[in-house]
Amino acid sequence: MRKLILIFYFVSACFLSFSQSKPQPAEIMEVLNRQVENWNKGDIPAFMEDYHKSEELKFIGKNGVVKGWEATKQRYFKSYPDTAAMGKLVFDIREIDFLSSESAWVLGKFHLTRPALGDLEGYFTLVFKKINGKWLIVSDHTSG
Amino acid sequence: MRKLILIFYFVSACFLSFSQSKPQPAEIMEVLNRQVENWNKGDIPAFMEDYHKSEELKFIGKNGVVKGWEATKQRYFKSYPDTAAMGKLVFDIREIDFLSSESAWVLGKFHLTRPALGDLEGYFTLVFKKINGKWLIVSDHTSG
Repeated sequence: MRKLILIFYFVSACFLSFSQSKPQPAEIMEVLNRQVENWNKGDIPAFMEDYHKSEELKFIGKNGVVKGWEATKQRYFKSYPDTAAMGKLVFDIREIDFLSSESAWVLGKFHLTRPALGDLEGYFTLVFKKINGKWLIVSDHTSG
Repeated sequence: MRKLILIFYFVSACFLSFSQSKPQPAEIMEVLNRQVENWNKGDIPAFMEDYHKSEELKFIGKNGVVKGWEATKQRYFKSYPDTAAMGKLVFDIREIDFLSSESAWVLGKFHLTRPALGDLEGYFTLVFKKINGKWLIVSDHTSG
């Protein structure tokens, strides 16, 4: 009986260690690819679905810090009023660094092709958190 | 005897859960305060000691991505050749978010008072990792 309990003990310990499955870069790429797709459809509300709907969301851009999901969405609407301003987006993802099983840091470059208004490009760093089983952007620092 | 083994089992499980002690914002503030102090002494090499000495270090600034500790140090030497260029640094730390017991994301604002050359200010986001028991900056995204 003692042997059985010991076996149970070690099996449980192993289970505890591996119960948080190792996250895969493909999970993050899926989100980023969907964002590009939604942007290029001119669909800012769909693009915003991959940001955490929280007052805690932060967008850091050249004009400082925007706090909260709603304010971030309004900033996008204001900066990109139509599909000509939105242009065609391409991401070049340079690094995905998992800081834990439920958080990741991403470095990427964006390029917006905008024949009418001139192209835009720059770098961004994102923090993702896995919230209720879903990877969401909790902070976006874009400089370009 | 079975009871004893069960008690041992639960005590061990509790110990496993709490063995990674909860990190405190003060640990990160200590690093940031030391950086300000070293910067204001005009000591870039000491300032650089709080960055991870690795090819993996990333500095993202208005001119793109600088990779590696040595290249980041050279960038600081080039951008701030003397104490007049370095000026007097103040940090305004807005948020410290621990992403795990061994990683943190920091949002802050910097202001450089430079009577001769004009002040500089902007926002930065840092990722810290606890490496061999020491909190080190592994990425620095500064826009300003």
